[in-house]
Amino acid sequence: MANEDANEGAAYTLILLRHGESEWNAKNLFTGWVDVDLSEKGRAEAERGGQMLAESGLLPDVLHTSVLRRAIRTAEIALHRADLHWLPVKRSWRLNERHYGALQGKDKAQIRGEFGDEQFMLWRRSYDVPPPPIADEDEFSQFGDLRYADLPPELLPRTECLKDVVGRMLPYWYDAIVPDLRSNKTVMVTAHGNSLRALVKHLDKIDDETIAGLNIPTGIPLVYRLDEDLLPVTPGGEYLDPEAAKSAIEAVKNQGR
Amino acid sequence: MANEDANEGAAYTLILLRHGESEWNAKNLFTGWVDVDLSEKGRAEAERGGQMLAESGLLPDVLHTSVLRRAIRTAEIALHRADLHWLPVKRSWRLNERHYGALQGKDKAQIRGEFGDEQFMLWRRSYDVPPPPIADEDEFSQFGDLRYADLPPELLPRTECLKDVVGRMLPYWYDAIVPDLRSNKTVMVTAHGNSLRALVKHLDKIDDETIAGLNIPTGIPLVYRLDEDLLPVTPGGEYLDPEAAKSAIEAVKNQGR
Repeated sequence: MANEDANEGAAYTLILLRHGESEWNAKNLFTGWVDVDLSEKGRAEAERGGQMLAESGLLPDVLHTSVLRRAIRTAEIALHRADLHWLPVKRSWRLNERHYGALQGKDKAQIRGEFGDEQFMLWRRSYDVPPPPIADEDEFSQFGDLRYADLPPELLPRTECLKDVVGRMLPYWYDAIVPDLRSNKTVMVTAHGNSLRALVKHLDKIDDETIAGLNIPTGIPLVYRLDEDLLPVTPGGEYLDPEAAKSAIEAVKNQGR
Repeated sequence: MANEDANEGAAYTLILLRHGESEWNAKNLFTGWVDVDLSEKGRAEAERGGQMLAESGLLPDVLHTSVLRRAIRTAEIALHRADLHWLPVKRSWRLNERHYGALQGKDKAQIRGEFGDEQFMLWRRSYDVPPPPIADEDEFSQFGDLRYADLPPELLPRTECLKDVVGRMLPYWYDAIVPDLRSNKTVMVTAHGNSLRALVKHLDKIDDETIAGLNIPTGIPLVYRLDEDLLPVTPGGEYLDPEAAKSAIEAVKNQGR
């Protein structure tokens, strides 16, 4: 972890944890809001994240999660491991993964073959081009899902690009997470690749093009020390295991080649 | 479950779930506030409770738990089983098991031998005789436990009788659970033998002597339909599996003989 000088000016502490491999990551299917569980590997990643948290001496005061099982399960496993299972917890759909529209439940390789590399990468990585919307009667739609019953119908996404995720995540940051930080709580957030990218984009003021190249490794707690203005003392934050994070980021880059 | 006639006059629904066997139940040790985990059998009981909940068609809107691992784990397992892992959750030390004072961590058979049957039963079943207080430096004391750090020192129990549990549980009932019921939420509570007996004593207006004979079986959801005055429509509530509950209650009675 950072030495004391590096944390000079730090007023608040925020810990981000991206869930590990899910059953559909392993199967190479688009997931989005489909509520799949962690794979065995994903559970092991959560255990390891909890172990790192326990060894770090960081003591979160409150947990925020999405309403998706893979983030909830990650938090449960990690917090039991760190003896922090009793933490107060708040959940919100605003921390959910990006909604993948009509691609939810589809095989990634098949979609790539059908629509071509360019369209595939546009859907995956462009900032403002969402996939086609999912039909309400699609088996992988969240229409009618009990957990979203209190949401006004116009708020329930049928598809999202990263820009949409930023738009629906930020109100939760301002209204739920920031007040916890301002009352001097160390806040932990367990969420997803894209909801965490949206948050990091905001914190580090990353532009719309550069964010496409940013990957947050799974299962490694990422710690942001924030100053009085909620600006990161160290841009990009610091991983509890920087070496493991570096390797994971390199591995993703090489996959893309 | 109850037929419709039996629920006439019901305004609110409360679901109680007592955690299953813990690692220390299996070892015959006094547990109280010591934060032990569920045994394999206890996990299976939680799964079964979740299964019953799923089959009942009951849909809790919010979960309340103690801050002890065995109740938290029970809720996690049962709610994942019932596809309700995303429920909002609130935790409080006021739902904790009875603090067992200096007996925490001690072998039950050994204490019974040392102090005799009468004293043993008095500590276990009297309404208002607590065991001797635990010393702060005892390895099984909760003094210094992070999760109680915000509690004024005079509130942290060193021992409790059931009367003490009623006294510290009721404020949570009135201030946290009743408001959820009054806003028409179906409330689920996962807690412990004595915190649930304290709640049931209050709901069913059971006198101080009679409560000694009441046992709530583990892992079987107990449903109270409450009228506008928060009085049970059916005294004693109704178990989701009445036959299993009856057998479990009989088994405990026969143990005592």
